[in-house]
Amino acid sequence: MPDMAQHTEGLIDHACLIVHGPDKPGIVAAVTQLIARHGGNIVSLDQYSDDPSNGAFFQRVVFTQPELPVVMPELEADLATTLEKLGLKWTLTDLSVPKRMAILASTSDHCLLDLLWRHRRGQLPVTIPMVISNHTNTAEDVRSFGVPFFHVPAAGPDKSAAEEEIVKLLDGNVDFIVLARYMQILSDDFLQRVGVPVINIHHSFLPAFIGAAPYRKAKERGVKLIGATSHYVTQDLDEGPIIEQDVVRVTHADTAADLQQRGADVERAVLSRAVQWHAENRVIRNGNHTIVF
Amino acid sequence: MPDMAQHTEGLIDHACLIVHGPDKPGIVAAVTQLIARHGGNIVSLDQYSDDPSNGAFFQRVVFTQPELPVVMPELEADLATTLEKLGLKWTLTDLSVPKRMAILASTSDHCLLDLLWRHRRGQLPVTIPMVISNHTNTAEDVRSFGVPFFHVPAAGPDKSAAEEEIVKLLDGNVDFIVLARYMQILSDDFLQRVGVPVINIHHSFLPAFIGAAPYRKAKERGVKLIGATSHYVTQDLDEGPIIEQDVVRVTHADTAADLQQRGADVERAVLSRAVQWHAENRVIRNGNHTIVF
Amino acid sequence: MPDMAQHTEGLIDHACLIVHGPDKPGIVAAVTQLIARHGGNIVSLDQYSDDPSNGAFFQRVVFTQPELPVVMPELEADLATTLEKLGLKWTLTDLSVPKRMAILASTSDHCLLDLLWRHRRGQLPVTIPMVISNHTNTAEDVRSFGVPFFHVPAAGPDKSAAEEEIVKLLDGNVDFIVLARYMQILSDDFLQRVGVPVINIHHSFLPAFIGAAPYRKAKERGVKLIGATSHYVTQDLDEGPIIEQDVVRVTHADTAADLQQRGADVERAVLSRAVQWHAENRVIRNGNHTIVF
Amino acid sequence: MPDMAQHTEGLIDHACLIVHGPDKPGIVAAVTQLIARHGGNIVSLDQYSDDPSNGAFFQRVVFTQPELPVVMPELEADLATTLEKLGLKWTLTDLSVPKRMAILASTSDHCLLDLLWRHRRGQLPVTIPMVISNHTNTAEDVRSFGVPFFHVPAAGPDKSAAEEEIVKLLDGNVDFIVLARYMQILSDDFLQRVGVPVINIHHSFLPAFIGAAPYRKAKERGVKLIGATSHYVTQDLDEGPIIEQDVVRVTHADTAADLQQRGADVERAVLSRAVQWHAENRVIRNGNHTIVF
Repeated sequence: MPDMAQHTEGLIDHACLIVHGPDKPGIVAAVTQLIARHGGNIVSLDQYSDDPSNGAFFQRVVFTQPELPVVMPELEADLATTLEKLGLKWTLTDLSVPKRMAILASTSDHCLLDLLWRHRRGQLPVTIPMVISNHTNTAEDVRSFGVPFFHVPAAGPDKSAAEEEIVKLLDGNVDFIVLARYMQILSDDFLQRVGVPVINIHHSFLPAFIGAAPYRKAKERGVKLIGATSHYVTQDLDEGPIIEQDVVRVTHADTAADLQQRGADVERAVLSRAVQWHAENRVIRNGNHTIVF
Repeated sequence: MPDMAQHTEGLIDHACLIVHGPDKPGIVAAVTQLIARHGGNIVSLDQYSDDPSNGAFFQRVVFTQPELPVVMPELEADLATTLEKLGLKWTLTDLSVPKRMAILASTSDHCLLDLLWRHRRGQLPVTIPMVISNHTNTAEDVRSFGVPFFHVPAAGPDKSAAEEEIVKLLDGNVDFIVLARYMQILSDDFLQRVGVPVINIHHSFLPAFIGAAPYRKAKERGVKLIGATSHYVTQDLDEGPIIEQDVVRVTHADTAADLQQRGADVERAVLSRAVQWHAENRVIRNGNHTIVF
Repeated sequence: MPDMAQHTEGLIDHACLIVHGPDKPGIVAAVTQLIARHGGNIVSLDQYSDDPSNGAFFQRVVFTQPELPVVMPELEADLATTLEKLGLKWTLTDLSVPKRMAILASTSDHCLLDLLWRHRRGQLPVTIPMVISNHTNTAEDVRSFGVPFFHVPAAGPDKSAAEEEIVKLLDGNVDFIVLARYMQILSDDFLQRVGVPVINIHHSFLPAFIGAAPYRKAKERGVKLIGATSHYVTQDLDEGPIIEQDVVRVTHADTAADLQQRGADVERAVLSRAVQWHAENRVIRNGNHTIVF
Repeated sequence: MPDMAQHTEGLIDHACLIVHGPDKPGIVAAVTQLIARHGGNIVSLDQYSDDPSNGAFFQRVVFTQPELPVVMPELEADLATTLEKLGLKWTLTDLSVPKRMAILASTSDHCLLDLLWRHRRGQLPVTIPMVISNHTNTAEDVRSFGVPFFHVPAAGPDKSAAEEEIVKLLDGNVDFIVLARYMQILSDDFLQRVGVPVINIHHSFLPAFIGAAPYRKAKERGVKLIGATSHYVTQDLDEGPIIEQDVVRVTHADTAADLQQRGADVERAVLSRAVQWHAENRVIRNGNHTIVF
């Protein structure tokens, strides 16, 4: 996958540190001193406090660190000591290591192909070890991008066998999962067993038009805007933390089919932004919403 | 009100014909022939059929008609004969006669002042015979535009006396009513008695976040877009036909107060477009949605 | 190409009539009567006059006409008599016959692939008899869509041999040409010889940043919006009639490469809308601008 | 001016530090340590480097500092020592002290009134010591907001007397100047003598349609988007660093007057955002572009 390499090769010795927890004076100083102490140089730093007095604090720092893979363990030990004392949670990531992204899809190909194509252009810092679909219509396209395709049918009311098979394929192989218009509801058990973030694209502007046939409902209601929402999947279907949303303008003259077509354009744009931001460690979950740096 | 005159003085001898009903072949030909027969010249024509076979047909024609005020009665007689035969409903309007618009407001002034400004600039083809508010804070501003201000308090649980007083003020004096962030719920009885269209601005992107404290809800849900919806008021609160909607992008860093401020900007923009389109006879209601030409 | 058929199969017996010329009373009536006389039923009608007194008139009518292929000749004869008397130009199109679209491309694939995808999804009412490129990198992708790919190198300062070869490939085979980021300047002679409309996508918001390296220029100028423009190609490079434009918001933190990536997304969105509207006969050229119905 | 006070009263003991200069390791650590040393607590921190190796560095830190007015001098002394050693420029601002904004206007009132109204609502952290106009039509409106209005006519080719009078009014009384559709060209001499930033609103999307009659030009060119640009005024007219831009969609059916009206809406929205960001110390000039935090 040469394009991916191209995307992340410029990120050798680049680390991303995410910090969050209760806000208090001195956090930024402590973090930036720690980085300076190890010879790191800050490339970008974003921080946000939802309330300066006793609120929650969130920070994303990207810094260059000579010989990062070598220095990583001692950096982590230092972070553990320094940040845990302040009651803060943290994750340190080597940005030159792309995240491994699995895509689950059904018959619709607009979101799926858009992700594969952006990946090939080097726009998404991920590897794609597999696409799993409960249909076979996209197999040839997927494989033409050099990506393995697995068909896991989901017929019948009992989805547990299908979920079992998907879990086996994913287990240990992926860092996050994208539902690219995957039309099967995933069980809580499945979500717990895969144990990695799952990103969904919802075919309307949440919290409006939840459930089936959103474009028909939108047409009947005579809305003047059509939207899409990308969010993390939680046990409450369609209620997880929102990563990105967008809309397009429509008119009375658009049919329900037109709305669906315009909607597909928004869906793929919104999903691709959400995936890129997640892959770049820009999204921090906080309760039922997100901080996007 | 010199600006208003300026707006409509260019519309002397301009008529607007709205036609709607069951679609069938020959409607457009019948209408345009009828106009040509009386010496009219079509300036613009929009039409829409929600289904060419047995659907509903909608048409808006603006045409110049020499000596319109004189010719109006015979034009109407001709329309009655021709269009009622085809089972169509119609309204004919002299565009040089501005509609009379009453504004109902509470303490918030952003929508109210925006409408008054636009009117003074000659952007809204209406007269404004009165502003009615259940508060007095905007009285001086309103009167500085040369518009009468009436204070009708709405304290206490029983609003019937206040509604009675408002109905008396409006009765016979207005062609439509705009609720410019009027924070009182209007009774069905009130809506029936005023008997003219009532336009509302809803402080979010319907059908999302219906009810109280929408900006707080939006903040908690972590939405990435804030919207506003203008719609006709029906007995089902917040459920009437949508005229216009729009959104602006927000981030996690925006406080609930920021969202409210950004929301106020969208609200006044959306409401002013809805009012302008209604005043120009561009909006046709059809069940619970609108055709906007 | 089953999807294309799917797109236009619903358009059997649908005709599109474009009329334009000097405005005068009675045009709409004459046209709609003529259609009614042949048993046609109007599906949609748009008209525009740039000045009701002595301006230019433009009209697009879509109507169903039983046995259209059979009736076409007599319809055309009737139109010739009626409309030419009024000094009007017209074209009548059978909407069930898709336009033949050739795509010219270079190394960039974002616009090219987006058109091929949309076509395969049935969103563009065209056939694509060929893609011509001065590079070979997209050959495999193009052919995977079942579309012929021709490589016509354009090395060296003299492009006449290459243009000669392209003209031979196109001659008689296409109804319009799309330059999907084709990086060669076409000669006036070429444009005259192909004799069909040529649609280009310009990588910025015209008339800003004409010429080379627009994203670098935009970055240096510190713009807050990045745009794209699709227009018909004329002898004045980048100055032809605009069909569609759009922008996206950017910030100081976006690198020139980021701008280019965001720009690519706008480019493919803008080009696909321009192509769709042209293919649906929605665009009328008038001097150096367009009417888009 | 109670609303302004309301806006900034929450900012007692809030300081804003802007730092910029050559990027090198340790800047963020040095700054945040310095703030921690004086007992400050960081509320928000934004930083940007246009190139991590040898690029330019920009930072904005908002922090709370108990007894800020008392501590200010020693804070400044410490900053001088620490930052000048690193070759960095800096400014420290007490956010509870609103900037003093003068507005220059001509006959158009849309930008002027929007600023006055937003100020009254408490959305702009400024005081407005004066409005200066070369016309008198807005005098009554301006004074109804409790703001002094000065009339300085600018007839005749020699503007030096008028500029002289304006300089006298402004001298020592304002921190920045907003040209709210002020239709006089300011001399280089004027700009040097006032010695404070001047913000302009340009009635199109720069660098397109520079000069006179932009809406007519835009109409002739058939653009599909109308824009506005707010920028700092430099000696090169219309070429100064851009602060904010936006566009709205238009169609062939919009007249030049419609474009102007839609344009006025974008102008006031864009200008008000630019003014707010400048007033909040969010904009850093760097050569001919801006960093907006």
